[in-house]
Amino acid sequence: MMRLAILGPGLLGGSIALAARQRGGFHTALWARRAEAVREIQSLEIADRASDQLRPIVSDADFIVLCVPIGVMPALAREIAPMIQPAAIVTDVGSVKGCVAEALAPIFRERGRFVGSHPMAGSEQTGIRAARADLFDGAVCLVTPDASSDRAAVLEVRSFWEKLGCSLTELPPAEHDEIVAQISHFPHLLAATLVESVAAENAQAFDYSGPGFRDVTRIASGHPGMWAEILHSNRQAVRKSAEAMIEKLREIVTLLDREAPMTEFLTQAKGRRDRLRLPKSNTDV
Amino acid sequence: MMRLAILGPGLLGGSIALAARQRGGFHTALWARRAEAVREIQSLEIADRASDQLRPIVSDADFIVLCVPIGVMPALAREIAPMIQPAAIVTDVGSVKGCVAEALAPIFRERGRFVGSHPMAGSEQTGIRAARADLFDGAVCLVTPDASSDRAAVLEVRSFWEKLGCSLTELPPAEHDEIVAQISHFPHLLAATLVESVAAENAQAFDYSGPGFRDVTRIASGHPGMWAEILHSNRQAVRKSAEAMIEKLREIVTLLDREAPMTEFLTQAKGRRDRLRLPKSNTDV
Repeated sequence: MMRLAILGPGLLGGSIALAARQRGGFHTALWARRAEAVREIQSLEIADRASDQLRPIVSDADFIVLCVPIGVMPALAREIAPMIQPAAIVTDVGSVKGCVAEALAPIFRERGRFVGSHPMAGSEQTGIRAARADLFDGAVCLVTPDASSDRAAVLEVRSFWEKLGCSLTELPPAEHDEIVAQISHFPHLLAATLVESVAAENAQAFDYSGPGFRDVTRIASGHPGMWAEILHSNRQAVRKSAEAMIEKLREIVTLLDREAPMTEFLTQAKGRRDRLRLPKSNTDV
Repeated sequence: MMRLAILGPGLLGGSIALAARQRGGFHTALWARRAEAVREIQSLEIADRASDQLRPIVSDADFIVLCVPIGVMPALAREIAPMIQPAAIVTDVGSVKGCVAEALAPIFRERGRFVGSHPMAGSEQTGIRAARADLFDGAVCLVTPDASSDRAAVLEVRSFWEKLGCSLTELPPAEHDEIVAQISHFPHLLAATLVESVAAENAQAFDYSGPGFRDVTRIASGHPGMWAEILHSNRQAVRKSAEAMIEKLREIVTLLDREAPMTEFLTQAKGRRDRLRLPKSNTDV
């Protein structure tokens, strides 16, 4: 029986608890800052134990998952570091890994073993009521050790996410951040910018929008505060993607006058898009 | 019994035939250029009559719908004009209306009554095998008369699409073209450009893409030739949307350094996106 501590009662924290219970072999303890959230966890029977106190949740844990916003992680890590078992494994679910590893690795250098994770699952829905035991089924989880990471801890973190249904890849934190900027963070900003660009041109146009516009802008419905934090935390890589996009757009606009090269361009884009590995539709990055 | 002639056996032509048959009150005749397509229509029993000859399809028709690519419409219109009943109503399903009205209205000035339509339904799937009787259920249809249009014909065209399940709006052709550039044509170009921008930065990133990237790029899987023609036909308005987008992107990238204004921006975009009128998910623009 692995003693699993989950800190943060959002969609991801709740889904980890539900998935772990469904898989079996875990004792799950879930921490929430607010007493009201603790009562909700208890009434929904999402975890074996819930508390708004950190010590009873983390002190005997073998494996601790930080499921709080990136900006809150360093303070929470400093708070729990003195309480945890010396060999406890600590991971997180943040969408940006460079800044998290930089802040957390030193905190857990003396006590605990930290390895970052990014399970690429989620949805525009947030909060524990959206939690689902199958959220990680078939999702990619990127595990992001750096040179200082304990190799045994890396393997345990991999094995944890595999048990929850993820397929695993290891990437250095900086490489992770560039990749998710390209396929998740910048596309989010792009979708929001498209909405606002149409609004600035002619807000009446929204009345005529169909499923194409709905899909291309869906991710703009994500949680604004969470995404602003992600975008800010990964701003260097997102800026680079935005600049690449602006340059590409300028180039492509010139093809509007020439139908044959435009067909060629759209054929190439369609080919790449059709070849995307398409995970199940109820998870999201 | 309305004698309905549908020219062009694609997704839209086939779906109009199926929807008309389901609604009743129509005799449906479907023209396809290729004998092979005619045999397919016959074996799928999509229309009451099918032929690769125009005259037997259009000569006794009350209502004629052109469901061929925009670029082919003027030649087809010139071919059928001498064959049709003097009071026959002619409409089309092209996604761009300014250039179609300019070309077709003079052809049908002496014979027939032309009014453009744009039923905003479709899918990345193309061809008659994707045709569905419910394709137009709840879809918006934009009818685009100009100053020269016969008012009785406009009302008949509206009534036709309403019978097939559409909700109707009238717009002048130029206004139509600006609106669809904003919510359909430019977003298509944007989705394709995003795919190619990521490919240019780091094609390996596609391996990590999830449902967010899949949705934001879905429309890039549309038919390249058809879309290149649409983009070219509506290039002025699409270029205007692209320029507005580039300007907006430049402005938004500066918010990456400032989390609070970025949150505000994302909140506004989310609000607008959440308020979109969302038609059923199996139709598309």
